[in-house]
Amino acid sequence: MSEPLEFYFDFSSPYGYLAAERIDELAAKYGRKVKWRPVLLGVIFKATGAAPLTTVPLKGDYAKLDFVRSARFMGIPYNPPSRFPLPTQMAARAYYWLHDRDCAMARAFAKAVYRAFFVEDRDVSDPEVVLAIAAAVGADCAAVAEAVESLEIKERLKAEVAAALDKGVFGSPFILCDGEPFMGADRLPQLEARLAGKAF
Amino acid sequence: MSEPLEFYFDFSSPYGYLAAERIDELAAKYGRKVKWRPVLLGVIFKATGAAPLTTVPLKGDYAKLDFVRSARFMGIPYNPPSRFPLPTQMAARAYYWLHDRDCAMARAFAKAVYRAFFVEDRDVSDPEVVLAIAAAVGADCAAVAEAVESLEIKERLKAEVAAALDKGVFGSPFILCDGEPFMGADRLPQLEARLAGKAF
Repeated sequence: MSEPLEFYFDFSSPYGYLAAERIDELAAKYGRKVKWRPVLLGVIFKATGAAPLTTVPLKGDYAKLDFVRSARFMGIPYNPPSRFPLPTQMAARAYYWLHDRDCAMARAFAKAVYRAFFVEDRDVSDPEVVLAIAAAVGADCAAVAEAVESLEIKERLKAEVAAALDKGVFGSPFILCDGEPFMGADRLPQLEARLAGKAF
Repeated sequence: MSEPLEFYFDFSSPYGYLAAERIDELAAKYGRKVKWRPVLLGVIFKATGAAPLTTVPLKGDYAKLDFVRSARFMGIPYNPPSRFPLPTQMAARAYYWLHDRDCAMARAFAKAVYRAFFVEDRDVSDPEVVLAIAAAVGADCAAVAEAVESLEIKERLKAEVAAALDKGVFGSPFILCDGEPFMGADRLPQLEARLAGKAF
């Protein structure tokens, strides 16, 4: 019995968005499921000493160009957000709360958050926007509003990020396939070759 | 008339090696030539504040795995060197000196340095090894030995690295195609799509 792939991402990560648009379909092609695990890159970068891509001299400007080009290359709609990067703990907390109640709804929510951010240019750090997206996928808006402020869900998100770090997650997207790490939307071809059982 | 691609790389960069094994063939397929420009990542990282990949927590271990896997995925021989990374100014100086005298010989030298490092596990920071490789591609060994210690060639290499930084080069491999930057061996598919004139 094949284990699900583990898909780690930050809601503010353009490459995470690109992988999110492809990962379920790719896994399903090889009879695999995917666990989605939003994390907070800010916390992870503090632990590893890394800096957000777009703040690095030269690399930052290149990254902005590469986000757009990579999206086009993969055939995925992408509009550079006017506010970027954004804090994503509100979206991540809502995700985990939904996930524990309705996994399919949480998945739909995650995809909708990414599209809101990277296609519709909505401010997904705004709690009102997060709640509106939750409502649009059928969630109980009042319950989500209460949940995202609870100590329980804050601790849950902290634990998820700590667990990701323990597994070696240092960026977004980061995919574990039978324990093997694949970092970046640009590693999906290698992941696919692995899933297809190609010798390489 | 199409301009040549500009291919920037450090002789100690595994992804640079992978690109070096493919770039000429790829460019030729679309009627393009390639200018090879070795640089010193140490100097570039000092300017941009970046750290060598393998020294970054978590990312470093992943990178070592990804070098091997990416080489296999691309069908390129790769043996993790026992000494890594290595200083590469000696090889880069020899390259530019050869380049100004015999471009084809310099190209053969560059490919041979990369294979010596990443296939044969030779210490390409050792001047004796650099000279042996130069001799093997037909260079005048004594002349190269003298040249790599000359002020002129040291200044030439400094100027090349400074010029690369001015063009936005922040890593290896870094390819400019009609002014458009492509960073990483994993961007060769996007470069090829661009050269093929695909709309994306």
